[in-house]
Amino acid sequence: MSDQYVVGVDFGTLSGRAVVVRASDGAEVGTAVHEYPHGVVEDRLPGTDLRLPPEWALQVPQDYREVLQVAVPAAVVDAGIDPAEVVGIATDFTACTMVPTLADGTPLSEVDGFRARPHAYVKLWKHHAAQGQADRINALAEERGEAWLARYGGLISSEWEFAKGLQLFEEDRDTYDRMERWVEAADWIVWQLCGTYVRNACSAGYKGILQDGGYPSADFLEALAPGFGGFVADKLDQPVGRLGGRAGTLTAEAAGWTGLPEGIAVAVGNVDAHVTAPAAQATGAGQMVAIMGTSTCHVMSGDVLREVPGMCGVVDGGIVDGSWGYEAGQSGVGDIFGWFVRTAVPAEHAAAATAAGETLHEHLTRLAAAQEVGEHGLVALDWHSGNRSVLVDHELSGLVVGLTLATRPEDVYRALLEATAFGTRVIVETFRDSGVPVHELVIAGGLSKNELLMQIYADVTRLPLSVIDSEQGPALGSAIHAAVAAGVYPDVATASKAMGKIRRGVYLPDEGRAASYDGLFAEYVALHDHFGRADKAMRRLKAIRRDAVARRQAREGS
Amino acid sequence: MSDQYVVGVDFGTLSGRAVVVRASDGAEVGTAVHEYPHGVVEDRLPGTDLRLPPEWALQVPQDYREVLQVAVPAAVVDAGIDPAEVVGIATDFTACTMVPTLADGTPLSEVDGFRARPHAYVKLWKHHAAQGQADRINALAEERGEAWLARYGGLISSEWEFAKGLQLFEEDRDTYDRMERWVEAADWIVWQLCGTYVRNACSAGYKGILQDGGYPSADFLEALAPGFGGFVADKLDQPVGRLGGRAGTLTAEAAGWTGLPEGIAVAVGNVDAHVTAPAAQATGAGQMVAIMGTSTCHVMSGDVLREVPGMCGVVDGGIVDGSWGYEAGQSGVGDIFGWFVRTAVPAEHAAAATAAGETLHEHLTRLAAAQEVGEHGLVALDWHSGNRSVLVDHELSGLVVGLTLATRPEDVYRALLEATAFGTRVIVETFRDSGVPVHELVIAGGLSKNELLMQIYADVTRLPLSVIDSEQGPALGSAIHAAVAAGVYPDVATASKAMGKIRRGVYLPDEGRAASYDGLFAEYVALHDHFGRADKAMRRLKAIRRDAVARRQAREGS
Repeated sequence: MSDQYVVGVDFGTLSGRAVVVRASDGAEVGTAVHEYPHGVVEDRLPGTDLRLPPEWALQVPQDYREVLQVAVPAAVVDAGIDPAEVVGIATDFTACTMVPTLADGTPLSEVDGFRARPHAYVKLWKHHAAQGQADRINALAEERGEAWLARYGGLISSEWEFAKGLQLFEEDRDTYDRMERWVEAADWIVWQLCGTYVRNACSAGYKGILQDGGYPSADFLEALAPGFGGFVADKLDQPVGRLGGRAGTLTAEAAGWTGLPEGIAVAVGNVDAHVTAPAAQATGAGQMVAIMGTSTCHVMSGDVLREVPGMCGVVDGGIVDGSWGYEAGQSGVGDIFGWFVRTAVPAEHAAAATAAGETLHEHLTRLAAAQEVGEHGLVALDWHSGNRSVLVDHELSGLVVGLTLATRPEDVYRALLEATAFGTRVIVETFRDSGVPVHELVIAGGLSKNELLMQIYADVTRLPLSVIDSEQGPALGSAIHAAVAAGVYPDVATASKAMGKIRRGVYLPDEGRAASYDGLFAEYVALHDHFGRADKAMRRLKAIRRDAVARRQAREGS
Repeated sequence: MSDQYVVGVDFGTLSGRAVVVRASDGAEVGTAVHEYPHGVVEDRLPGTDLRLPPEWALQVPQDYREVLQVAVPAAVVDAGIDPAEVVGIATDFTACTMVPTLADGTPLSEVDGFRARPHAYVKLWKHHAAQGQADRINALAEERGEAWLARYGGLISSEWEFAKGLQLFEEDRDTYDRMERWVEAADWIVWQLCGTYVRNACSAGYKGILQDGGYPSADFLEALAPGFGGFVADKLDQPVGRLGGRAGTLTAEAAGWTGLPEGIAVAVGNVDAHVTAPAAQATGAGQMVAIMGTSTCHVMSGDVLREVPGMCGVVDGGIVDGSWGYEAGQSGVGDIFGWFVRTAVPAEHAAAATAAGETLHEHLTRLAAAQEVGEHGLVALDWHSGNRSVLVDHELSGLVVGLTLATRPEDVYRALLEATAFGTRVIVETFRDSGVPVHELVIAGGLSKNELLMQIYADVTRLPLSVIDSEQGPALGSAIHAAVAAGVYPDVATASKAMGKIRRGVYLPDEGRAASYDGLFAEYVALHDHFGRADKAMRRLKAIRRDAVARRQAREGS
């Protein structure tokens, strides 16, 4: 076994990362990253002058294949191993990211006649233009008392398969009719590797509303939109594979792309957040894994089924086969910090950062860290990219209150860091109040490097923070699944113990600061409930903005 | 008369400006500015290590004398006239700006034993640390049914004579006891010029609660704070001069400072905002003059007495002798735009502005001007420096809602411009609803140069905008008063017609944009009423901030 290696490939929002891992102990021996040439398509459709409306976010499938062709061989070279020693490959993906395809898996955006149609492209997880559809799904499901609704905290997200599918159906019927499969990118990439289309239990459950073996009924879908009743049977339904299972073996074509041996195990697909839990040895009840990057996903396993308001979902075998997998999320976290640093920090700070040999993030963090809790007098709502849990509303927006003429960039920066911690506390408390207590926060993702941010999370939540001991958690998690699919380990739990990596109790709450944060958190909750529940101002502002953009485009077009 | 000149001196927040004006036609023939060496003292007391608490804003009296010594002679030189042709001098000042003095007018900050005491210094208008005192004055006045309260819209400001005086009384009793006079800087500077202490009708009425010939009673003051009952009789009461009246004649000492002839007329003092109305020929009913600079003051004359909620005050002869003078205000306007440009606009925009040969304000304005109304999806509350009218609460703070990852600096900048226009609309509508209709907005002050801002004000308020045709409105207004005090004209109205300058109807509302703004204004009003009336979050955040600052100072001090 000491000569066996596995490859994990993590498909993120902007790039794909391949990691070569030793199956015996999880040592990460080689890695490579490939950036998607088209990145996130938000302004104009590639090769056209076609402008996309606000809230759209598309991708190009060929970018994903390039990761297999470029990053996988590069990681093997970086590892310095013989490719023949690789026994399995597994992948994980952003979700819900949807590819409309023909029956053979060809993306519609590669089909003549559809290349200039926005709806023929991949709808990335952060495509937020299907809120209207999500609203109608939720309203009808509640009205009809659909049993599956409570499994998603009472609200289906506009990011998921049905809302995005319904938007396609309603806005571009030709493309919808030509589409033969509506495929999670997590499964599409596995299909590219092994030639077999297997849905993974994770995204089928969390994003595809597959509960207790069934999808929303044809009757429900037809009531939602006449003609949409066949959506599941015609475009969506497909055999489901359990996580850690084998979807098939590497095809000759994919072996050619990757340089890996034809016929090695290809694991069932997975989602980037969920696959991180085993990488952090955090598959037990009460261990909430927060994967903190541009957004944050929270995943936690549990022995019991509970319905938690506003959670993203609870899925049987959704994280590890045999347990209930809970998911929650915050749709903007690092994204918000990045936006702030890019757009709201003056040249003076940039110069000071350069002079101190710091990045602007590091500089603001250092200045912010010198403050007492509450000294900036600010509270922010971290909804610049909407709210996933517990409000499930992508029409919400960001807010800063308490601004004065003495407010400095580092003050707002810290308030934004804190706002995301308050958002996590709302989630933790909602789980606790629903009978799913959280005992430990396990942090993965790039933001775990910010010590101030980590301490704020410990202080705000009063939870001990552990940190994954790998820079590439999802890819390591995928590698663990590859090892199971290849038969190196009997199951994911066993593989996780051997290959996963964690540092426990790295940040502990300070009671003095925690008590001070209670006051600010009370203000956050008041704002949260006012703008998230009682008042619809943020939704009205989004509508005003859409009308105004349409007016400007009409003016410029004429 | 063609050889007669007058000098107007405008004492602003950061500098004093002298203007030499021809009495016959108001021609501004010479001008000079002198910046206060100490500016606004907000961090440390001059010459000491003594740190000031948040919300404090002090000044140094000698800075004001230097304006007489430097700017006045320089303006005469600039005019190229013979100083002997000057027949009068008048001044206007920020308000309420208070100087604690001995009986002879010596500022306490110049008295041995008091130089290191913050309370011995001038409390500038924007010293906002007496909110607690203002709250108690308001509560007690309402409880006792004090008749004067309604003359101030139902609320006394923390900026005014009584709140600041009570703070001094309660926080530094030694200094209070040593203080023999509590003097408006507007009157102190006149005292310096002519050796006579005359209170002006404007600040006595608006800031000193002088109504129907009397101040708040000793009984009321004693109930407010035991020992404070003698405040009016001992420190405040003084003969009141009508606007345009003569306070005295120039002393030999002041003639030496200014280079003007000894014995020329020195006018009764005035306030910078109010003195601008005659400079803009806007002393008629329904002509609301908005002096737009760091903050905005609204002044309007009326034939009738009405009680307007949240106005700063209505004073008999408070703008021109013989009419009711109404005042309202917005405590942060240009200040907010300046703060934003200084602290929240990235290097990229600064570089683009430089490349285009624009200031950063001009650059952001140009980018913002290209947008449709509502396109940014934002609404802001313009309370970064508190709210003067109609809420009269300096514990309020700024807010931006609707932020997304697509929000750009020019979006927030435009939202801030609009927020101040919405603030003006709230004031205009409150006056209208109280039986004091506004027919025309007359704009003075530096912000009148921003054409986008002006058009936004016209569109948001649906009022025609006229613009004063002078770059130095207050100083011109003072010069008009100097001419009356010198006997060149019989009254201010006559002098205003001859010497005032205005361009009428420069900006007219566009109905399409006005209709679009109605939607955003409705959101502003909802936020205004929520945070300004229903919810006390902003006050709680200020309290949290004060506690945190105290903790940090304790930590650093130990």
